[in-house]
Amino acid sequence: MRATLIYGAGDVRVGDVPDPVLRQPTDALVRVLRACICGSDLWPYASLPAAEHPGRIGHEFLGVVEEVGSEVSGFGRGDVVVAPFVWSDGTCDFCREGLQTSCRHGGLWGRDGVDGGQGEAVRVPQAQGTLVKLPVGEDSALLPSLLTLSDVLPTGHHCAVTAGVNARTTVTVIGDGAVGLSAVLAARRLGAERIILMGRHKDRTDLGLEFGATDVVAERGQEGVEKVRELTGGDGTHTVLECVGLEQALDTAFGVVRAGGTVSRVGAPQYEKVSFGFPDFLRNITLTGGVAPARAYIEELLPDILDGTIQPGRVFDRTVDLDGVPDGYRAMADRQALKVMIAP
Amino acid sequence: MRATLIYGAGDVRVGDVPDPVLRQPTDALVRVLRACICGSDLWPYASLPAAEHPGRIGHEFLGVVEEVGSEVSGFGRGDVVVAPFVWSDGTCDFCREGLQTSCRHGGLWGRDGVDGGQGEAVRVPQAQGTLVKLPVGEDSALLPSLLTLSDVLPTGHHCAVTAGVNARTTVTVIGDGAVGLSAVLAARRLGAERIILMGRHKDRTDLGLEFGATDVVAERGQEGVEKVRELTGGDGTHTVLECVGLEQALDTAFGVVRAGGTVSRVGAPQYEKVSFGFPDFLRNITLTGGVAPARAYIEELLPDILDGTIQPGRVFDRTVDLDGVPDGYRAMADRQALKVMIAP
Repeated sequence: MRATLIYGAGDVRVGDVPDPVLRQPTDALVRVLRACICGSDLWPYASLPAAEHPGRIGHEFLGVVEEVGSEVSGFGRGDVVVAPFVWSDGTCDFCREGLQTSCRHGGLWGRDGVDGGQGEAVRVPQAQGTLVKLPVGEDSALLPSLLTLSDVLPTGHHCAVTAGVNARTTVTVIGDGAVGLSAVLAARRLGAERIILMGRHKDRTDLGLEFGATDVVAERGQEGVEKVRELTGGDGTHTVLECVGLEQALDTAFGVVRAGGTVSRVGAPQYEKVSFGFPDFLRNITLTGGVAPARAYIEELLPDILDGTIQPGRVFDRTVDLDGVPDGYRAMADRQALKVMIAP
Repeated sequence: MRATLIYGAGDVRVGDVPDPVLRQPTDALVRVLRACICGSDLWPYASLPAAEHPGRIGHEFLGVVEEVGSEVSGFGRGDVVVAPFVWSDGTCDFCREGLQTSCRHGGLWGRDGVDGGQGEAVRVPQAQGTLVKLPVGEDSALLPSLLTLSDVLPTGHHCAVTAGVNARTTVTVIGDGAVGLSAVLAARRLGAERIILMGRHKDRTDLGLEFGATDVVAERGQEGVEKVRELTGGDGTHTVLECVGLEQALDTAFGVVRAGGTVSRVGAPQYEKVSFGFPDFLRNITLTGGVAPARAYIEELLPDILDGTIQPGRVFDRTVDLDGVPDGYRAMADRQALKVMIAP
């Protein structure tokens, strides 16, 4: 079959790889209907050292079950399913607690002999714990929004949930990428009435306003902090959803959070240390978040997509076939596209 | 009257200061029955640059109301009261939310013309918001335990509460000082059944065991981390109460916290940056805590002291009169005393 391969920074190609086959009785084979490119795929695309043997890439996909192992029940050939961006057994203590990203028998797509999501098909390990059946057909118009259940929507939701967003909390969202916009959607869905979106790409912040943001702050750094403080009587907001992952974004987050408030980060940290000393200790600031256990949230978010309450698939502004994947990476890296969907 | 003055590092004296008088209608005058020396007093005692004009010091005291301003109701001459270590109006939004340490009209003892607690008497600003009446007489045997309501007990309690300690969470407490031991007491009180105390002073950890610790780890650094992991099947504990304030202690905290768990810090941070990057992001670790809004917790903790359920006053292992205060500082700095009580 054909799948996306990364050879190093700036070098993504689509090539032939072995067809996936069941290896364990807990595996399933899924033919990919839709996949997409993640902001976090852009980190290796920006910096991975060139290698002789390419790696597989992609961790967001939905598709059709082709075959299941003998220990997989509840799924059958033809089922449309979505996979969260970490696979997990669904039975260990961490999975039962809703922290499937720390599953004792789970792992990442595209590593250690596991397929990446940006290809024609995927062998899904721990399929029964990992996959979620979607009550739609292969040609559903909802596929783009359902695809966001794989990562970007639960990631925004995780950010809002761990920050403690509710109807009584004011919110700042830092970052107008697909995760930031999903965080706006999630915060609104959880009842937040004041959502300040910090971002400087008007087409993106416009979508943020449609998703529920009430204010947009285009300024960055200290200027942006002051603007948010102006908008909040000098205090900042109860919760801050940091959806970028850069140190400057986290500094901004601490700058705009109200005393007693919470910063949640879901942007993969591109830093080792956090400026979080005595002044924010005196203000009782909490720093939470982390990699989203998407699997824990899918059943909760799914109905709102099925009934049209939310349309998170609007973050996709370009669709490519497999041959178009390298162009998709370029477009996202150059910020020509917000988020690229792949229809293999 | 006489009060404690700090002239610089290692130089604490007791001297004459003006008798306090009511300045605002919201003030009260309190004659100090008991005060104490805090671990945080040892930071200026270790490092304050020498100054011509000394500063006042001390922020933990209980005493007897001598006089109240015209806008103070609910208190009268002769009432025994305890003061939390930050004064606050009790009416602003932060106070109503239980974050009196961020009160819009509050402040610290010993600063900006406000008396310190280690003296014969104190003018208490915002007395109605600040003070809590204690249903005991001046000669109550409970005074030492009631004095801990001023800071050390609510600080340990804040650490446990913000960490989310309950009957289902395992706990590590880092630090065998008075705050660490209070955190053990607080965690046990909140139902924790497994409490690992990290400390290397046997007399202190012995008291910790009486307060509810189930295990003691004397090793520090990586060796201590490994020991806690051994005790917890390799996973670490759900919650970690960091009661030291040094960077090494916080590193240990991240080392012993279980995936999905929470580190709460109440030791005043002696660092500006925190090592809290991608690995702990992947494990969904939360860092919370901060300066404890003691005022928010006093009514909740008081009954357990009055009925003898907890005896937090056992952290005091030495009592001095005012003349003995300089010796008290030396004893605590040299770790000859765990916590020193002052009976002026």
